[in-house]
Amino acid sequence: MSGMTTDNSTTHEPLSSVYWGGDHLVLLDQRLLPEEIVYLKLYTPEEVWEGIHSMKVRGAPAIGIAAAFGTVLGGLRYEGSDAGGWLEQVVKTSEYLATSRPTAVNLFWALDRMKLAAAKLAADGLDISGLNAAFLAEAEAIRAEDEDVCRRIGENALPFFKDGMGILTHCNAGGLATAKYGTALAPMYLAHEQGMKIKVFADETRPVLQGARLTAFELQQAGIDVTLLADNMAAMVMSKGWVQAVIVGTDRVAANGDVANKIGTYGVAVLAKAHGIPFYVACPLSTIDLETPTGADIPIEERPAEEITEGFGKRTAPQGVKVYNPAFDVTPHEYVTAIITEKGVVQAPYHENLKKLFE
Amino acid sequence: MSGMTTDNSTTHEPLSSVYWGGDHLVLLDQRLLPEEIVYLKLYTPEEVWEGIHSMKVRGAPAIGIAAAFGTVLGGLRYEGSDAGGWLEQVVKTSEYLATSRPTAVNLFWALDRMKLAAAKLAADGLDISGLNAAFLAEAEAIRAEDEDVCRRIGENALPFFKDGMGILTHCNAGGLATAKYGTALAPMYLAHEQGMKIKVFADETRPVLQGARLTAFELQQAGIDVTLLADNMAAMVMSKGWVQAVIVGTDRVAANGDVANKIGTYGVAVLAKAHGIPFYVACPLSTIDLETPTGADIPIEERPAEEITEGFGKRTAPQGVKVYNPAFDVTPHEYVTAIITEKGVVQAPYHENLKKLFE
Repeated sequence: MSGMTTDNSTTHEPLSSVYWGGDHLVLLDQRLLPEEIVYLKLYTPEEVWEGIHSMKVRGAPAIGIAAAFGTVLGGLRYEGSDAGGWLEQVVKTSEYLATSRPTAVNLFWALDRMKLAAAKLAADGLDISGLNAAFLAEAEAIRAEDEDVCRRIGENALPFFKDGMGILTHCNAGGLATAKYGTALAPMYLAHEQGMKIKVFADETRPVLQGARLTAFELQQAGIDVTLLADNMAAMVMSKGWVQAVIVGTDRVAANGDVANKIGTYGVAVLAKAHGIPFYVACPLSTIDLETPTGADIPIEERPAEEITEGFGKRTAPQGVKVYNPAFDVTPHEYVTAIITEKGVVQAPYHENLKKLFE
Repeated sequence: MSGMTTDNSTTHEPLSSVYWGGDHLVLLDQRLLPEEIVYLKLYTPEEVWEGIHSMKVRGAPAIGIAAAFGTVLGGLRYEGSDAGGWLEQVVKTSEYLATSRPTAVNLFWALDRMKLAAAKLAADGLDISGLNAAFLAEAEAIRAEDEDVCRRIGENALPFFKDGMGILTHCNAGGLATAKYGTALAPMYLAHEQGMKIKVFADETRPVLQGARLTAFELQQAGIDVTLLADNMAAMVMSKGWVQAVIVGTDRVAANGDVANKIGTYGVAVLAKAHGIPFYVACPLSTIDLETPTGADIPIEERPAEEITEGFGKRTAPQGVKVYNPAFDVTPHEYVTAIITEKGVVQAPYHENLKKLFE
């Protein structure tokens, strides 16, 4: 493979993309990576809403964590002394934050968990300052649990990895998308820790280039062998026999095992099947939505045409051209070899086996 | 489909991408489209070599035409009065231009035709000025024939089109890639002339975005309904039932019907097959290379990493990351529903039927 430049990086501690800063939420602005590492301080739910909506924070688990801290900011803004008033304020904040993006179920899962916690706390007889402290602890727990969950996803996925293997991934389901480790990237970090040699192919993932900007960046930082591809090169790389597994994250798994993930994932799954390559999906239980019967019931966000026509600061398409820009697609369950969660590995029939995870 | 803006354009005469300017070659700089329409005047074979190599002119037939005029510029530079010396100069220029890009066979086809013409002319007893004039006429003939050939390709492809049809194409095999009409886009222009309503989906075609910058641009200029997609959206658009045919151009067809074309074409062919959609290839006979037994024998150009990591003037990948950037891929003949040429439509078994075209 000519046209490759050498990776000079060494192993670094991964960047934290979302955490609490004492009285504000800290977000690593993922839109500016890898050229600029900028941490944003967000003091209001409105700033958190905008951060999610504009994809400064992205990745289903990280969105959930950011939203949880966003409800804490809503509670902190309450100026009265009445627990009922505080709860009302928190619920309002939660409902507002739920409108920031439609597809990732972790957003709704985290907000529901925070609302439930708020209702319990409000009934506990705490004063407002006690309520806010306990409410913050719940958001911190979501963050801490995510780190633990991701590590367990990695451990459960690791048996599918072998020394010398080529692995293709799409978008970014790494440490930047979660509290730490990531979902699809967690087994890569664990394999690397154990001295296993893997060769990762990262789709650049148009239009927002999460693969080029985030996956290639964080794997390179960790010293893992990663090669960046334009999305349309995945088929050729598969046909050359360089890929033995595909692993991706997901924004929502329906009850029948259909998987919504970043646009382009469905195409990768079809190509993997055509080349006899297993296609794995890695996610926490909080991404599985038994209330959504099939992929057809998952709302698919469409984003502005400009992400495609002038995504790089330069106009690269004619003025006035029609553009179709769905942010996600749905991979039907028949293309999914296994769904890997913190509670274990699920295979078909998904309708039955996903349910068992929650028993 | 939200996120679509309206197309306000009307029908225009297509832009000419390559023609003779009296004593120089005129190239429309395709790297600057659609934002800037800049015509370059090239006076030397070195400038033509650079124009082909850097993709200022691209598209297999247009590259062939540019190279033919490049050999004319080589002949014009000859300062002696000896036909043998002139021929030597022309042959040297031709061999030099053949090194500009490795995959498109039209380049070699056009240069071979020019060399043969030069050898015949040199034996004809003309003076140098007469040689140059007759040699220019040969290059002009290649250009004029290409326009005629493209129109006939369009006529032969038209029976596969139906009113109301959705058609997906990859890269640019349009008027800009040829003297006029294009290959894959020729039937679209003819369908539009006849009042047939078609809906074209244009893959943006990373990394150089020929689909966004050229195909969307020229179809929009012609008043044809075109929707721009990121490459990784083609699968979703197919799964929605919006596409009834795929049609692409090619840079070289091997004797067994394997087709080299812009990177990403193979993936589109696999996706088309998985969705039961016919996959057509449109090309002139000059693109069919019976001397190349199979796709595995076609040299695949690899291009600089920067096309992917900083293709739009802005760095969008980490420094030092490895990149794989093949410019073309090979679609095995079993994915090709038909190859549509100016002499008719060829279907499997390609090994026998392609040969018959040349009988």
